[in-house]
Amino acid sequence: MAEWLASWVGGAAKEGIVSFVESSADQGSEGFVPVADRVAAFDNDGTLWVEQPSPVQAPFLLEKLVAEVRENPSLAEIDPFKGIVTRDPVFLDGLARQVPEVVLSFLEAVGAAWEGTTPAEYEAEVLAFLEESRNERFGVAHTALVYRPMLELFELLRAHEWRVFVCSGGGRDFMRAYSEKVLGVAKENVIGSAPEYVFRDGQLVRENAMRGNVALGPGKPEHLHARTGRLPRFAAGNGDVDIEMLEVADFAVVIVHDDEDREFSYAAGAEAILDKGTQKGWTMVSMSEDWSTIF
Amino acid sequence: MAEWLASWVGGAAKEGIVSFVESSADQGSEGFVPVADRVAAFDNDGTLWVEQPSPVQAPFLLEKLVAEVRENPSLAEIDPFKGIVTRDPVFLDGLARQVPEVVLSFLEAVGAAWEGTTPAEYEAEVLAFLEESRNERFGVAHTALVYRPMLELFELLRAHEWRVFVCSGGGRDFMRAYSEKVLGVAKENVIGSAPEYVFRDGQLVRENAMRGNVALGPGKPEHLHARTGRLPRFAAGNGDVDIEMLEVADFAVVIVHDDEDREFSYAAGAEAILDKGTQKGWTMVSMSEDWSTIF
Repeated sequence: MAEWLASWVGGAAKEGIVSFVESSADQGSEGFVPVADRVAAFDNDGTLWVEQPSPVQAPFLLEKLVAEVRENPSLAEIDPFKGIVTRDPVFLDGLARQVPEVVLSFLEAVGAAWEGTTPAEYEAEVLAFLEESRNERFGVAHTALVYRPMLELFELLRAHEWRVFVCSGGGRDFMRAYSEKVLGVAKENVIGSAPEYVFRDGQLVRENAMRGNVALGPGKPEHLHARTGRLPRFAAGNGDVDIEMLEVADFAVVIVHDDEDREFSYAAGAEAILDKGTQKGWTMVSMSEDWSTIF
Repeated sequence: MAEWLASWVGGAAKEGIVSFVESSADQGSEGFVPVADRVAAFDNDGTLWVEQPSPVQAPFLLEKLVAEVRENPSLAEIDPFKGIVTRDPVFLDGLARQVPEVVLSFLEAVGAAWEGTTPAEYEAEVLAFLEESRNERFGVAHTALVYRPMLELFELLRAHEWRVFVCSGGGRDFMRAYSEKVLGVAKENVIGSAPEYVFRDGQLVRENAMRGNVALGPGKPEHLHARTGRLPRFAAGNGDVDIEMLEVADFAVVIVHDDEDREFSYAAGAEAILDKGTQKGWTMVSMSEDWSTIF
């Protein structure tokens, strides 16, 4: 067992995970899982990398809208541009608390901003942003803030013939731009909220429309089923929007952000999953106690 | 080369395919394809298995609607049920020629028939149908009518680290029910037209609504991109609805149904792809000349 999860401190969480995964591949075990069913699903922000002070995609979207205002200053008169460029606390709070009309005006503007873009153009924008942008607290690239213990968990799972999927409410194409290099997860195993693309004149171009539901809450099992034909037998998350994905799994892991010194300590947006995970006996992973190394 | 494609007759088609695939994995070759980009996409009906006298899913759908009429005889008064139970040639011809209002009434009835079904229930219905149903001409199960040369092509591709995807206008969940056992293709690599499922009370149930476009024509590259984050570098099809998928690939294969003795000889629905493939120098595979064994 020493060979697996090198950045994890020995304890109930590490032992429980290793034991579940080893049993899953042992035909004589009660916990055996047929190879075809070995689908593991991971939330992204706060589960695989730092999501504070804001999810990485947020400044990417905001910068895009600010750039639109620079191109066309009259936009500064109307929301969501007005709220963004004036840093209107009511607007920004509405966005953070996901007030429907605020979120809708924001998504409409975001959709319009990339309308007509090809997949390659969009990917180049994401990669340029990730190259330049830094986490406010750590002053390093976001891609340097992937949790090493979770990459080790991918290794453990793959060594036992599990397929690793990322399933996030965040943008599918945003994550796919870096997933192979940074997470070692193939684009085709990345599930997220996504715009429509149409194939026109021999190429794909982006429309201002979302395909299907946003992958949050019940949207996570819905997207996982649509994409894989299965529900995950292993799942990990850290927010209330991950509850349904964890409920359908045999083995559920909750990442608990309780390490102010090395990362962040917060429970906002995770109140329900922390309660539920404790009640249901899910594997609660304390970043401060269960991880010897975070990055 | 003798080791690959045992059911293929030596000739331009076989040599071209083997040469392309071997070069794709040879870093010193001009035809080298990075591993991550080795996505191969195959149409299903008529490319992987027999689609005559009708695509396999057609009798499955028709039997379901006939069963609905048995349960509720008043349905026999209205289309599409009326057209089906009376075998109305105008209706059936409209369905075959895809007259929009006929297709819409049919899809609406099909959607309603399975509304509220769980994925496991639907899969069981498909498997029961495949167990009992027989191809009209050959009198054997449809799953016995998969083209052996195409399974050998999957082997060749996989041995060179290609990932094989099925991308059909047919039903995603219909194909997924048998894809692993019959084609050796994981459910998650099967792309097709699909209904919405909602996650409610802890389980997925089917709604009477389709997610995104039907995967035909431009819908094929659209679905492949949505699903894999890439366009295929290798693609094979046999009908006009496959043209766009083949156009985006580096290497395109067209299965030509010209073997009345051993399978069927027909060009209906393939007029444009036969022309285009010849013009563009796509690899035209003659079932009569290029395949020594079909099943």
